[in-house]
Amino acid sequence: MAVYTDVSDEDLAAFVAQYDIGTVESCKGIAEGVENSNYLLQTERGPFILTLYEKRVDPNDLPFFLGLMDHLAARGVKCPTPIHGRDGRALRELCGRPAAITGFLRGMWPKRILPYHTGELGKAMAEMHTAAADFALRRPNNLSVAGWRPLFDRCAEAADTVQPGLRDTIARELDVLEARWPHDLPTGVIHADLFPDNVFFLGERCSGLIDFYFACTDAFAYDIAICLNAWCFEADWSFNVTKARMMLAAYRKVRPFSQAEYDALPVLCRGAAMRFLLTRLYDWVNTPEGALVKRKDPVEYLRKLTFHQTVPGAGAYGLDPVVAA
Amino acid sequence: MAVYTDVSDEDLAAFVAQYDIGTVESCKGIAEGVENSNYLLQTERGPFILTLYEKRVDPNDLPFFLGLMDHLAARGVKCPTPIHGRDGRALRELCGRPAAITGFLRGMWPKRILPYHTGELGKAMAEMHTAAADFALRRPNNLSVAGWRPLFDRCAEAADTVQPGLRDTIARELDVLEARWPHDLPTGVIHADLFPDNVFFLGERCSGLIDFYFACTDAFAYDIAICLNAWCFEADWSFNVTKARMMLAAYRKVRPFSQAEYDALPVLCRGAAMRFLLTRLYDWVNTPEGALVKRKDPVEYLRKLTFHQTVPGAGAYGLDPVVAA
Repeated sequence: MAVYTDVSDEDLAAFVAQYDIGTVESCKGIAEGVENSNYLLQTERGPFILTLYEKRVDPNDLPFFLGLMDHLAARGVKCPTPIHGRDGRALRELCGRPAAITGFLRGMWPKRILPYHTGELGKAMAEMHTAAADFALRRPNNLSVAGWRPLFDRCAEAADTVQPGLRDTIARELDVLEARWPHDLPTGVIHADLFPDNVFFLGERCSGLIDFYFACTDAFAYDIAICLNAWCFEADWSFNVTKARMMLAAYRKVRPFSQAEYDALPVLCRGAAMRFLLTRLYDWVNTPEGALVKRKDPVEYLRKLTFHQTVPGAGAYGLDPVVAA
Repeated sequence: MAVYTDVSDEDLAAFVAQYDIGTVESCKGIAEGVENSNYLLQTERGPFILTLYEKRVDPNDLPFFLGLMDHLAARGVKCPTPIHGRDGRALRELCGRPAAITGFLRGMWPKRILPYHTGELGKAMAEMHTAAADFALRRPNNLSVAGWRPLFDRCAEAADTVQPGLRDTIARELDVLEARWPHDLPTGVIHADLFPDNVFFLGERCSGLIDFYFACTDAFAYDIAICLNAWCFEADWSFNVTKARMMLAAYRKVRPFSQAEYDALPVLCRGAAMRFLLTRLYDWVNTPEGALVKRKDPVEYLRKLTFHQTVPGAGAYGLDPVVAA
């Protein structure tokens, strides 16, 4: 949740006048998106989302993100559709920041995860992976295995203040991940941040995906691993195999995956846990006291990492072995 | 800004089903209202506001607040209209808190105050005062002169940590205010918190008033004094007489005020400054480090108080004397 920028009425009116969406009737900061300022904009034509990109987003990445949403929307994947101005551009500037308007996506993210949610998620994720296959731009994942040790180096000192022994645990796990990380899995555009608050539902159906600002080019199965971590653990840290099975089965119906992807799931889940453990640890250490940002607990992802370190194989995720991929 | 309560999808759907407003398509926490959790609810029928009343609002006051909005809306004053459920009730419970749905009020609050804003404000305030004349319920103002010293007693110790000498300044001013406070001015329902973020505009016209959760029965001119403080000072603490004149002239066209009200303006402005100085001081001292609430600076209202202590009379606010009231 973040609303960092106060937009003046005059600036807003001048900005919106560059689009063919009518005049502004209301603009409210909304508690959505961690990295950017988001506003629910009501015009004569209905609701839109106005996003101001704050400093954690690299402006050079914005053509990738907005181009991807354009690409996906054109192929029927439900996601926020960038609105193009009269000059054809979707990206411009407001209050000294890059800014864009997107269509309003109906739906709500699930506060309490039920198995049907993960089934819908698996299907939507696979459809996104498939639809992005011919997207021309590439963006390396700078939060994958090569990025973890440099990130760790910047917060290792403080790890043991979060939990005694954490520094050693991470160092040892990084050794394992760097040695075993698969580099030849099927690759394409992944969302890379498909947490529940980025997946909208209307009733029991997924109505779309939002917040593509970590999207990048990486192994499809790594996206699945991120979702297994984000959606399939219960509050008591137990792993809900039913939810995992629903997700994976629904995914496989749209995009079958290979023996190599199947076999790699445990190490990918460990890596996905490491990625969020490290960024949360970094934020934990670097968020000043009193900041208007809620820090997320790194220990949650340490618990998830520990689970994946002990699984005997991908079967632990409720999935039948690949028979004919 | 406050969004404190996470509402589950099931609870929300069951809640909304008690109204004849269609099914929920979206529900986003919005950065509006300091005391309550507000959500922009989109249903098949359009936008609504869902408010959950958090602990700073006394549930016993809610019939007054919602009844007032009903009353005002019925008389054409633009404000959020409480939506009544199929059982006729506007107030019910959600997530263990009192909750209500109101209509969506178009418009935006002005980030930068121009003189036409204060003119529109004066008119809207006077129309509200007039329209509420026959509202049957009463609610004493517990943040008026009788409440200030008890409030000060709870934070006096810390006053000098905010600014050296502040404790003595407040104590002396309270003596003056208690001695000179007028008790026989024309009285009725006042908003008591008409800050810019509670007054919406569409273009150059006021489109409505929101956030009636400090409304109470008190002197009309005290509402004007609160607005002079909230709208007519510039960022350098200078008092903008043009803005004040616009406000007061527009107000008087709708509801003429008496010689006694005119004469009382300086002391009412001092009292209104004291009220916000004290509540901000109290919040400053009592808001824990790291809380997700932005503390407002008490010193701003000390500066305003100092201005009013030195004015020679109501003429300082740009107003002609009352000729024939």
